[in-house]
Amino acid sequence: MRLDVYFGAHSVTSADVQGRVVIVIDVLRASTTIAVALANGARAVIPFESSDEAVTRSKGLARGDYKLAGERRNLMIPGFDLGNSPREYTREAIEGKTILFTTTNGTAALVAVQPAREVLVGSFVNFTAVGAMVRAAARARSDIAIVAAGGERHFSLEDAVCAGRFVRVIRRGLNDVAMNDGAQATMLLERKYANDIPRLFADASHGRALADSGFAEDLAICAQLDGYPVVPVYQDRQVTKLGPDRER
Amino acid sequence: MRLDVYFGAHSVTSADVQGRVVIVIDVLRASTTIAVALANGARAVIPFESSDEAVTRSKGLARGDYKLAGERRNLMIPGFDLGNSPREYTREAIEGKTILFTTTNGTAALVAVQPAREVLVGSFVNFTAVGAMVRAAARARSDIAIVAAGGERHFSLEDAVCAGRFVRVIRRGLNDVAMNDGAQATMLLERKYANDIPRLFADASHGRALADSGFAEDLAICAQLDGYPVVPVYQDRQVTKLGPDRER
Repeated sequence: MRLDVYFGAHSVTSADVQGRVVIVIDVLRASTTIAVALANGARAVIPFESSDEAVTRSKGLARGDYKLAGERRNLMIPGFDLGNSPREYTREAIEGKTILFTTTNGTAALVAVQPAREVLVGSFVNFTAVGAMVRAAARARSDIAIVAAGGERHFSLEDAVCAGRFVRVIRRGLNDVAMNDGAQATMLLERKYANDIPRLFADASHGRALADSGFAEDLAICAQLDGYPVVPVYQDRQVTKLGPDRER
Repeated sequence: MRLDVYFGAHSVTSADVQGRVVIVIDVLRASTTIAVALANGARAVIPFESSDEAVTRSKGLARGDYKLAGERRNLMIPGFDLGNSPREYTREAIEGKTILFTTTNGTAALVAVQPAREVLVGSFVNFTAVGAMVRAAARARSDIAIVAAGGERHFSLEDAVCAGRFVRVIRRGLNDVAMNDGAQATMLLERKYANDIPRLFADASHGRALADSGFAEDLAICAQLDGYPVVPVYQDRQVTKLGPDRER
């Protein structure tokens, strides 16, 4: 079986994900925020590449049923209900709601991997839950692809290290896992940080930028390993939580 | 000053290289082959994105003055004089000639970085020569960008490790060097391999593919640290050797 890591949605082709189980990672902050939203009872998160598309979709929904959410350059979009800060996605704010979500990179990555067999959204806050599910797929000989979404067109350290942690868990005890160079590299990077996620965010340029913009508390949430143990599945163009609460 | 590493020509924007000193790295094999060609007396190497462009350009030159060279899927292009194997670029074959050169990735990267102030072609075989020149630029507070060209659209381990080696040398003893996440990651990757370049090529997918296709001797040449100590400069759309032999 194959286990490959790609850096950035722009470097993924259809052939790279076709028929595979895929994990999309945008630790700071889209994939963390999606996990928090689902853990706190959001009905679904629907990703859009543009804010216009999100607004257009909202017109078909009752006002009490959705939240317009997302960011551009880390900040809430004017006229939207929520930004991309996981702190905003409290049960009070979003329980039972559909989140119409657009962010700079994370949503583009979800749209890019649509030819996949199954798409999961991974981060540190739901690491073990997602890892267990993908590991089960790997044991059933499914090929896996991990997309470390990164920032704009560029490589990001926090997504690469999170990807490396998934690679390590997925291949443990399995023989004959063929990895691309990206997967090998992330395993080496992951070793440096191990469980010291705050140090990782302090080294990563996007972590530093968020801290400098007043989002230090967001970083603390994003670093909570298994703090929000849900498995977000992207299917039929929406992300829902796997398991009994899914249709809640 | 800034010192940034980018993975793949497709992830580089004009703004990333504008006004900077840039090193383009495609260790296996384009940047190694360029260094070998210039060390063995080629007058210039002119990169083209397509074989058609190379052929068109050749029509303006006398037959004895040029070689059509390059590869697609590691193999020589039909009708061309030379492939992309550094072994072919002997003094007998190429001294005094202009090499019209097209490869899958390396040449695309050279074309992508044209807004740079200065573009050098780096590899292990000319590591110290290129590193010394870029280090001098860094000491003069010039911003630096390194493009690890990679394969097709994907990250390649050998280019990342070579980039990390340049990063380590360039920033040694300098304060206040701001690096992007790519530069930080390559430094971590480089530590793993240090001077064991054969092991690096054995781990890298493109190294394994070349060995499997009968190019093991090429890998031995590409691993010769400082074996061909020239500084290839890309200027006015051609690569020439810096120094007294340049116009030879």
